[in-house]
Amino acid sequence: MTTTPAMDRLEARFRRLSALSGASGMLGWDQHVLMPPGGAEARAEQMATLSVLRHELLTAPAVAEELASASGEPLDGWRAANLAEMRRAHAHATALSGDLVEALSRAGSRCEALWRDARAKADFGLVRAAMADQIRLIREEAAAKAAALGTTPYEALLDGYEPGGSLARIEDLFAELEAELPPILDAVLERQAREAAPLEPAGPFPVDAQRGLSRRVMATLGFDFDHGRLDETLHPFCGGVPDDVRVTTRYDENGFVSGIMGVIHETGHALYERGLPIDWRNQPVGEARGMVMHESQSLLMEMQACRSPAFLALLSNWAREAFGAEGPAWKPENLRRIYTRVDRSFIRVEADEVTYPLHVILRFRLERAMLAGDLEVAGLPDAWNAGMRELLGVTPPNDALGCLQDIHWYDGAVGYFPTYTLGAMAAAQLFQAALRAEPGIPEAIGRGDFTPLVGWLRENVHGRASSLGTEEILKTATGSELTAAPFLAHLKQRYLES
Amino acid sequence: MTTTPAMDRLEARFRRLSALSGASGMLGWDQHVLMPPGGAEARAEQMATLSVLRHELLTAPAVAEELASASGEPLDGWRAANLAEMRRAHAHATALSGDLVEALSRAGSRCEALWRDARAKADFGLVRAAMADQIRLIREEAAAKAAALGTTPYEALLDGYEPGGSLARIEDLFAELEAELPPILDAVLERQAREAAPLEPAGPFPVDAQRGLSRRVMATLGFDFDHGRLDETLHPFCGGVPDDVRVTTRYDENGFVSGIMGVIHETGHALYERGLPIDWRNQPVGEARGMVMHESQSLLMEMQACRSPAFLALLSNWAREAFGAEGPAWKPENLRRIYTRVDRSFIRVEADEVTYPLHVILRFRLERAMLAGDLEVAGLPDAWNAGMRELLGVTPPNDALGCLQDIHWYDGAVGYFPTYTLGAMAAAQLFQAALRAEPGIPEAIGRGDFTPLVGWLRENVHGRASSLGTEEILKTATGSELTAAPFLAHLKQRYLES
Repeated sequence: MTTTPAMDRLEARFRRLSALSGASGMLGWDQHVLMPPGGAEARAEQMATLSVLRHELLTAPAVAEELASASGEPLDGWRAANLAEMRRAHAHATALSGDLVEALSRAGSRCEALWRDARAKADFGLVRAAMADQIRLIREEAAAKAAALGTTPYEALLDGYEPGGSLARIEDLFAELEAELPPILDAVLERQAREAAPLEPAGPFPVDAQRGLSRRVMATLGFDFDHGRLDETLHPFCGGVPDDVRVTTRYDENGFVSGIMGVIHETGHALYERGLPIDWRNQPVGEARGMVMHESQSLLMEMQACRSPAFLALLSNWAREAFGAEGPAWKPENLRRIYTRVDRSFIRVEADEVTYPLHVILRFRLERAMLAGDLEVAGLPDAWNAGMRELLGVTPPNDALGCLQDIHWYDGAVGYFPTYTLGAMAAAQLFQAALRAEPGIPEAIGRGDFTPLVGWLRENVHGRASSLGTEEILKTATGSELTAAPFLAHLKQRYLES
Repeated sequence: MTTTPAMDRLEARFRRLSALSGASGMLGWDQHVLMPPGGAEARAEQMATLSVLRHELLTAPAVAEELASASGEPLDGWRAANLAEMRRAHAHATALSGDLVEALSRAGSRCEALWRDARAKADFGLVRAAMADQIRLIREEAAAKAAALGTTPYEALLDGYEPGGSLARIEDLFAELEAELPPILDAVLERQAREAAPLEPAGPFPVDAQRGLSRRVMATLGFDFDHGRLDETLHPFCGGVPDDVRVTTRYDENGFVSGIMGVIHETGHALYERGLPIDWRNQPVGEARGMVMHESQSLLMEMQACRSPAFLALLSNWAREAFGAEGPAWKPENLRRIYTRVDRSFIRVEADEVTYPLHVILRFRLERAMLAGDLEVAGLPDAWNAGMRELLGVTPPNDALGCLQDIHWYDGAVGYFPTYTLGAMAAAQLFQAALRAEPGIPEAIGRGDFTPLVGWLRENVHGRASSLGTEEILKTATGSELTAAPFLAHLKQRYLES
């Protein structure tokens, strides 16, 4: 006779939920990678059915009873953390009425469709009314979830992406960046103006050669092709499940420079998923901690490890081999100039690591103001452009290059943007700690050996899964909660001192 | 207020069931086509969870009540047929105890694993005991299903593949083939011995060229690449869902002759799925009628339409274009000799259309005898070899070329084999009726125009889905229930008279 009957039942239920999520994940991957266009309707029906079944399993009356009973059962650390994660999932799922869920889903689909058109025509007016409806509903959602979770409304939305995320902490961290980044940016641009502009490696770069180079880089980083694949999509992503991780990329025959860094970024995500603890597969506590930690893993690989001189020397050799090319454009020093180019630009997804946080801070400000009712949707384009002038010193010539550029708000995601920059800070902090613990990491990377780095991440990040909160993982791994200092030090070192 | 509340609820439930089956179908496709080996365990968990959820949805207590209530509701023809199909699915799902289902599943996995080893070593002794256990359980399964369905035990198993299949009808039809085929076979072999042996087109046949040729042939047959894909697997199959049909094939650089006919066969299956009525997507009545009708559609394309002189002339031109080849081996007459070669051989899946039914009749005899307890598993190899001598005049040199060659019994499928030959007969009967109705079909095929043939199949077979039984569909389409005459006439015409 078990002494944890309620928890046993919950674990069996969440095991099912996890299998259904995994099935949805694979079907979603197929939808983006392979599905013929005519399959869309049938796929939507499959995905919706899986989603409804998950919701029913999670909100069944028995779950609330079992969660209550399980609190009184003798659970060790990981199981107690598992119960906390179950409680969080249950709170999110039960916080909203069925009517509100349906209204949000409809408003989101409508708003996203209108946004595609509005962005293509650079005409915010086309989506304004739909977005106003959507923001009203998201305010309702935030209020209901805040009551269920005992947080502020903004934090209730943030919690869906970054469990336990704190508004006060973000405000403090972002205030520091807001103060520190502009002078750094000025100094970097001034220094860059004195440097020769980078040469562009001349193509074409055959797709087969890029594919081979991508696989070589992924394998070097530690991606296990027995438990994953690399395929092709318009918008690269990392999907699948921990034992079958699906990375996608896009090949451009005219250039390989940004594509290969995209592959490295997604491989960082993939290594995290793959490194989650095998003993807790299929349970909430065994999942990745949240979007901050996930983005820290992709950016640690992309920005910290693979834009380092040691890796760029390796990449320079491998790229020359792959494309049978030679010349000054392929020198490591030229690659360094390419990969550290900084610009005051309009588009977040194309921004460098120095200006990127300013793009995020703008969005964080504006989404909080909209959620609080301090900014009307009609005023968004002006507020956006004013913010861009203030933070980045440029004014978007139209809304397609301004407030229409990102899908996030238009498909209902408010509270997501901060995770990009929190992830960038966490990446710098973790990489610094890894180098302290394993000083041989840069030299190993130069030999194409990522095992010291990935071994450290496995132990200090991946293997902890959701047994601790983001801040606790960082504190245990680095000795400190999340701070901006390592990120700022990294920028100064790379862009001003090296 | 609806007048069919119980049926409405049933239709909503079966819509969910269909979406879950579709999800499983896509995941199964991925598993065979793309999945890395390390993903197997996670995938098995996803598939098992979907299967358990389907079973729970289908056997919930409410279903029995709703099925009873719906009988008293005013349902038109298709909805009444839909109710009958629901009843059948429910009877199959509820006939077996949970213990028996589990025991069958375990015995099946064990027996299949031992069979792989036994076949590789040509040693029946390795699987004998496991198969005896499995056959005992299958007898229990057949008895329980027979009680639920009101059929004989063999028919209860057959019903899982061919709904409503009748043992007496199969016995009559097979008796006719058993009497007629041996003299035809003798005459064909005698005639063939007087003919020159076919020349083998010389390779290599580059995979890209084969892929292009395959896609060209599929498109010509009417395969819609907006609603389906062609991919590569070791064992070709047709999977997916009607709006997203996934055909697979295998390319051998040393030969294209059998590969291209495999593509045509699977395309026949695909056209059936794709032609199912759009108004009844996601309901049991909207599904393909059963394995006899399915095999009739693949064999109609492969054997009737695409081994015809008109199509082989076309294929001869396209293959020469695809491979940049010329010479006597590529002439239509030589292709005809290749594609109508007849042999007394050991292996069913490589058999020609003249001897194939004899392979099936052997298996039909033996599986009935094992199910009835008239043949012990230990006696199978001897009974197999004796049957081969009697029916085909050859003795397998070992059990790998004998009773170990097919997976079917070893993975628990008893009652499946007859559908291959019933399908071949139905194909001949349907093709003959199509030619009567549309005499221009051969000439159109010669021009690469399959629309008259596929149009006739859409109307007379595909569009009827499961609204009628197999025999009713045949009777409506051809004027007669299933008979051996058109098949025998076809063999005589192609192999003795042309």
